[in-house]
Parts: sequence; structure tokens; C-alpha cells
Amino acid sequence: MATPPGDMPIGELRRYAHEIADWIADFLDHIEERPVLSPTRPGELTARLSPSPPKHGEDMGQILADFYDQIVPASTQWNHPGFHALFANTASGPGILGETLTAALNANAMMWRTAPAATEVEDLTLDWLRQMLGLPKEFRGHINDTASVGTLVALAAARHRCSGGAVREQGVRAIAKPVIYCSVEAHSSIDKAAILLGLGNESLHKIPTDGAFRMDVEALGARIADDRAQGCTPVAVVAVVGTTSTTAVDPVTAIADVCEREGIFLHVDAAYGGAMAVHPDFRWVLDGCHRADSFVVNPHKWLFVPMDCSCLYVKDVELLRQSFSLVPPYLMSPEHGEARDLMDYGPALGRRFRALKLWMVLRYFGSEGVAERVAHHVRLAGEFRDWVEAEKEWKLMAPASMGLVLCRHEPAGMDEVEIAAHNARIMEAVNANGRSFLSHTLVGGERYALRVAVGNLRTQRRHLENLWSELKELTST
Amino acid sequence: MATPPGDMPIGELRRYAHEIADWIADFLDHIEERPVLSPTRPGELTARLSPSPPKHGEDMGQILADFYDQIVPASTQWNHPGFHALFANTASGPGILGETLTAALNANAMMWRTAPAATEVEDLTLDWLRQMLGLPKEFRGHINDTASVGTLVALAAARHRCSGGAVREQGVRAIAKPVIYCSVEAHSSIDKAAILLGLGNESLHKIPTDGAFRMDVEALGARIADDRAQGCTPVAVVAVVGTTSTTAVDPVTAIADVCEREGIFLHVDAAYGGAMAVHPDFRWVLDGCHRADSFVVNPHKWLFVPMDCSCLYVKDVELLRQSFSLVPPYLMSPEHGEARDLMDYGPALGRRFRALKLWMVLRYFGSEGVAERVAHHVRLAGEFRDWVEAEKEWKLMAPASMGLVLCRHEPAGMDEVEIAAHNARIMEAVNANGRSFLSHTLVGGERYALRVAVGNLRTQRRHLENLWSELKELTST
Repeated sequence: MATPPGDMPIGELRRYAHEIADWIADFLDHIEERPVLSPTRPGELTARLSPSPPKHGEDMGQILADFYDQIVPASTQWNHPGFHALFANTASGPGILGETLTAALNANAMMWRTAPAATEVEDLTLDWLRQMLGLPKEFRGHINDTASVGTLVALAAARHRCSGGAVREQGVRAIAKPVIYCSVEAHSSIDKAAILLGLGNESLHKIPTDGAFRMDVEALGARIADDRAQGCTPVAVVAVVGTTSTTAVDPVTAIADVCEREGIFLHVDAAYGGAMAVHPDFRWVLDGCHRADSFVVNPHKWLFVPMDCSCLYVKDVELLRQSFSLVPPYLMSPEHGEARDLMDYGPALGRRFRALKLWMVLRYFGSEGVAERVAHHVRLAGEFRDWVEAEKEWKLMAPASMGLVLCRHEPAGMDEVEIAAHNARIMEAVNANGRSFLSHTLVGGERYALRVAVGNLRTQRRHLENLWSELKELTST
Repeated sequence: MATPPGDMPIGELRRYAHEIADWIADFLDHIEERPVLSPTRPGELTARLSPSPPKHGEDMGQILADFYDQIVPASTQWNHPGFHALFANTASGPGILGETLTAALNANAMMWRTAPAATEVEDLTLDWLRQMLGLPKEFRGHINDTASVGTLVALAAARHRCSGGAVREQGVRAIAKPVIYCSVEAHSSIDKAAILLGLGNESLHKIPTDGAFRMDVEALGARIADDRAQGCTPVAVVAVVGTTSTTAVDPVTAIADVCEREGIFLHVDAAYGGAMAVHPDFRWVLDGCHRADSFVVNPHKWLFVPMDCSCLYVKDVELLRQSFSLVPPYLMSPEHGEARDLMDYGPALGRRFRALKLWMVLRYFGSEGVAERVAHHVRLAGEFRDWVEAEKEWKLMAPASMGLVLCRHEPAGMDEVEIAAHNARIMEAVNANGRSFLSHTLVGGERYALRVAVGNLRTQRRHLENLWSELKELTST
């Protein structure tokens, strides 16, 4: 047999790993020279790349050249300090180093045996984060790719508990008219979960909010009473800490009162806002969350960890296991029972070593360093909010207590439709300039607002000053 | 305001990225000096690491020292050529480089606008892989973390179609007695999907297999007829190409005949076995798969891509969109409708740029290079099978046509229970030696067998020769 075909030779891997080390450092050092929102148009990149795989292997130098010259310019730069769209985030240095090591180890943490370190570091690091957030010790953590999946898992556990476990065998027909509650401002992932879980959109009862976009708890209580009278079975309430549209914080304590009284599972979606609790001044955002049954927060959102890393905490980890565990003979290991096999706690069997980057980020910055950085973003957002409020034709569109300012330009005499179109034009003009990237939302589902999110570690006061100058210039008459 | 706290300084990032480049090259170069299965015991690593996060940031040099000295030795080495447990795989050089770049870009491909390159490269690269597998052009690809999630998504689409879309609003009660079919040898992720989707285990009807562990299609047809007579609604059939226990290939053509005749959604789980079709000699494994509605294959299993990367293909991509799309105002972009927003096709909203590593791996090795490597593994497994068959007291426990050999030692006079205990001892002795890592299965759900999986790019003939010597030595009398 001829020399067997193998992996890239070690010398070549070493050479290109060094090349990439320099490229990444230079890329991040000069990222402000790139437009935040890529100016590419749909299909342009595809047209430049080969429509078929090469028959013979290509030189890595050529592959990387295409990456640098084609793929990077067609990328929206999430690591740019001018990224203010959606929720801004960061792949920090220690996070990038962590991801690199995760790839090299290639551990698959399905069972403890197949990845002892990945399993134990996940448990340990999630407990670190729990301590940083001030959550009680009973909360056990589990990493999923996204909060969408974390919430799906939490609601699956709620469904399991509500049915006394019968749902596992009989499906949702084991529950008479199941209902899940969340506010009208809750994230679309709750709707997706209700669909996926076989409950259907009809089972998701959306509760109105108060003037600050927080769930109206009285309305929740009334709706539950009403539903019970009609033979419905409340399965879970989802409270949100930091809604996606306006960063509103639902009154979790009052919601927990209702859930305790009614015996309903309480899940808290703190995917974005939960991170704020790492700072003692902002611990209030999690008021009442110690009473939740499950809680999700995304380190890839505001804790400087690269995509993807979403942490689900549950009080009754055994409930999660009962909802999900299925151990065929080929997945039975000698340590089963003695050590936690992470595959038993969620839908995915295969699991990357996602905890490594989180462990490295938390150690590198330290709990106070993380808190200081989050506080810095809140301060910057607060300054921007003040600038908006001081300007006559600009309106703040929602309370801004986290890292997001919702605002818009309202020239005299424009109606709602004209204001929306006017601000959409402003947004596209800012985005076309390439120095900042904004997105929008409809506040309360109807009033157009620009999102100015602050969450990237490179964002400084000058970036927001520049954005504000640009916005004022675009709207000066 | 004092100097704002930021990311790791660029110079420091550069220095540690270079350090890691060398560490990874050395790690892979010397990986055979490490035990494959870590000798650590549950809890040992946890006891050595700090139970709380540091208050102040730590030096990256210290963090990496702990990684090298504590975490790596407590890791089971998936990149070791002696990894023969479960299904062996590889984080290849180009795959590791790709993951590193993905982390630095930190693109989130929820919408085309937020990640044009990640969106288009995912579409493009999945089409490359489709071509390599010889699947028809109508198949459109979508990446999930694992095949468990891919299969969940496929079955959610099947459920949607079967209900005429009503399931989205009404949940599974829109379908009268829904049923999903798979063989008794299908993967536990099908069971998990049935539970998650709210159908319940009772809805999963498991069809017996023939002597070679392939679905008995006559039994499938009979069961469907029976179920229909009882008022059940067949939702989907899941066929498997390369079962986890024995790498059996279900007769997909005959199953497709049944599905077409009955109007049932056909999903093919080719998570492991599908990769074999990259070689013309093994294209037979996908016979009939062009008629499936959906198909899943994992490049992180046998296509040299690091965890995680699972490709789901569907013929009716619009069905996927209808099953999953939910676009709140804050996720509405100007390109919506013109470009594909990948968030619309699965449960997760946030999405890493997982396609980059696949694109780099396929380019670096080329389609023929990938095929040659897979064929090499099949050849090596075939040789091992021949050695087993030539040895009187060793038994081949299932046909071995892919990269997995199931075998066991059967000394005269032992009963089934004794044989299982005897082979479990052999397995633990091999694993304790540290040169190879084996796992086991129960063939047909009852007969204990050792798994010898060949799938790592570094695995050569000598590694299997060493393993075979070790096994024979352990069993010599």
C-alpha cells in the first residue's frame, strides 16, 4: 500500500496557524478601517466562488487568500466597535484563543468518558457564572448553542413535569389543553418552542404589558384563572429579563408569586439582560429569578464569548434528565450513574467543548473585570440616551437601562408612517457610511425606532460621539 | 472617565495566538505519546480547579499553563490515531484553521444582512457536498450542530406537511394518532425527536430488521396498513444509512416505494454512513436516497471537520421555512425575501459560521482527496475484519462494510453473560493501556461486541496491527 493519505502535514499546519495568528491580530487591530455592514449584495459572493468543489486538493495559501479577499469583505463585522445593531457582542481575545484550542482537542462531550475535562469544566464554569450572577446554588447549568434551544429544553422539562412524566410516552395529548404564558414582548423563540413542542401557537397565551413593556402580572393572573375555568392546563410562564425589542425587565418577583400559587413552572429568558447582574449595581435585574425553575443567559451576547454559548440553568436537573435521557447500549459507559453524561440533558447528543472559551474569558478578565466592562457599556448607553433626550427633534422610544438605546428623529408635522420611512432612510444612510451599523425595531409592535446597542469591547465614547454627529448631520435642516 | 476597559491588547493576543499555533502543532505531532482514554476519574479535575471565578483578571500564561497541565491530560483524545470507540473522527488541520477564523469573525448568520458571507458560503458549500454525495439538485442544505437537531427539524417539517400546516397553530392535536416509523436499530435521536415534538414514544413505531440489521420493508408496509386501519396517521419514515450500532444500511429504495405509495415523508439519517458516498465505489450506500424528502449527514463524523457540523438537506425548503419562520419586527431586514435568512429554517436563531471549516476542508483535500481518505479507512477496517475472521476464537458480530468492525472473543464453553463480561474486561484492559480506545455495543440489542471504528486521518495500518496484537495477547491462553 502506498503512503496512506493523512491530515495536513504538521509543518504546514504550524506555518498557517502562525500566519492566521498574525492575520487575526492585524484584522482586529485595523477593524475600524473596514465597513461594519458589508456593502455586498445578495449573490455577489456566490458568483465569485467556485460552484463546485475542486477535484484535487488546493494550496492552503490560495484558500486563505480567498478568505481574506472574498469572504472577509462580504462579512458584516461583528467585532467592529461601530456594531450597534441588534445586540452588540464581542469575540474577545481569550475567547478566540479558547475556540482555537477547542477545535484542536475536538472533544465530544456526549459522555463523561469521552470528554472528562469538557464535562467537568462545563459544570464548573457554569457554576462560576452562577456565582457571578448571584443565583442560588441549586441551579445547575448546561450549555446549548443558543437561547432558542435552551428555552426549548426548559419548556420541554416544564411540559414533562406538568404531565407527571406522561408526555414522554403519550405526547402532548397527555395534557388537557396545555398553555404557556409570556408577554407580547417576549422573544420569537418562545413561539418557535411552542410550535416545535407540538403545543402549537394557540397554546401560547400572550399577556399584555405595561407602559414600560413589562408583563402585566394582574393580566397574567386573570388569564390563568380564565384558562383554568375553560379546562386549560397551565404548563409554564416565561418571564423576560431584557426583552429583545426594548430590554424591558418583567416583574419576576410578582410573576414568581403567581407561579408558586398556581404551581406553574417558571422559566426566565435572560439571554441578553442576565449578563448585567455580574455588576453589583445591576443585580436588581435578576430580582426574583432565584425563584425560577429555569433560567437562560447567553455569554455569547454580553459576556465576551464568541458564538455560540448559551447557558441554561435548572433547579431540578433530574427533571431535565427524565425529560431527555435515552441511553442505548452503544452509549452506556462504565461511569454511567457515577458521572454526569451531558447528552442526558438536552436534544443534542454530540457536544462541543464550549465551556473552555467561557472558562478562559472569565479567568482572563476576572469577575470584577467582566463587571466593569458591562458597566462601561451601560454608562456609554446612558450617555447616548442623555444626548437623545437633550435634542428637541429626537425622541427616546423606551426606557434605556441596559446597553440599548431606542430612539428616532421626529421632525414636526410628520405622521407615524412618514416618521418610519424617514428613520429607515437615516438608518440606511448610516449603514452605508460603514462606520456604524444600526438596526431597527417596532416599539410596542408599531412605533419605528432605531436600535443603538452598545456591547462590543472595542466600543469607546468616540464611536458613539461619531454616530451621534452622523445622525445629527443627517437630520439637520 | 479613565481609560475604558477593553479587550485583550492586540500585542498580547498576537503573542498567545502564536504560542497556541506552536502548541497545537506539537500536540498533534506528539499525540501518540498521550493515552487515548484519559486515566482521570470523575471529579479529579474539578478538585484541582478553582471552585470560584477569580475576582481580578489572570495572566493568560497561567490560564494556558492550567489548560496544558490540567485540562489536556483530563481529556479523551479524539484526535489520537488509536481512537476506535463510537465513531472515530478528525479535527483536520484545515478544519482547525477554519474554526479559528470563524471565532475571529464571530459572524452570526441569523440574517443574510448580519452575515452575507456566512449565509452564502453555507449555501454554496452544502451544495458542494451534495454534488460530492451524488444527491439531486433539489436538495437544499442547512447546517445544525448535530444530526439529533437535524432529524428533529426534518421530522418537524414532516409533521407540518402531514397536518397541512395546521400543527403550527393547533399543535399535534391537529393530527389524528400521528405515527413515525423507524427500525429497531435506528438512533436514539429519533426517540428524542418524537418526545420533543410532542408525539411521544408511543407514536414511534419500531420496525423489525432482517439478519443484517436492515429495516424489514414488508413489516413496515404491514405495520402502516395496520395502523391506518386503526385510524393512525403516518407522519414520517426514518431510514438509516449506517446505523450507529452496526453500520447497517436500510433498503432505502424499497422504503421510498412504500413512502411514495402511502404519501409519507421520508427522512434519511445518514449522519455517519452518508460520508462514504463521496467515493464512487461506495455510492451504493445512498441508493434510493434521491427519493427522500430530507437527508442528514455529519461532516464532523467522517469528513474531517471539527465538532460541530451536521448538514440537513431538504427537497422542499419552503416547507422548512413554513414550519419555522417567525420574523418579529426587530429581525426584519431590507433583504428579507430577496436573500435567504438562515434563521428561518430551524429552531436556533443565532448561528455560527460553521460552513467555513467545511469549505476549507473540502478545498484543501479536494473531492478526490476526501474520497481517497474515506476509502483508506474502509480498506483498513476491511483488513481488521479479515484478521478477526481468520482467528478461531474471535467472531465478527455484524457485516463490516464501512469503517466499523464489531467483534468479540468467544472462548469455548462461555455462555452469553460470561462472554459479555469477558469482552468488557478485554475492552477495559485495552483502554487502560492508553494506546487504543474501544467502546462496545449490544448487537441486535443483546449480544455484546467490541467496536473497532476507523475514522481518524492519522490512523494507519500499524495502529490496527498494534491493537490486534494487544487483543490477541490479552486473550492468549
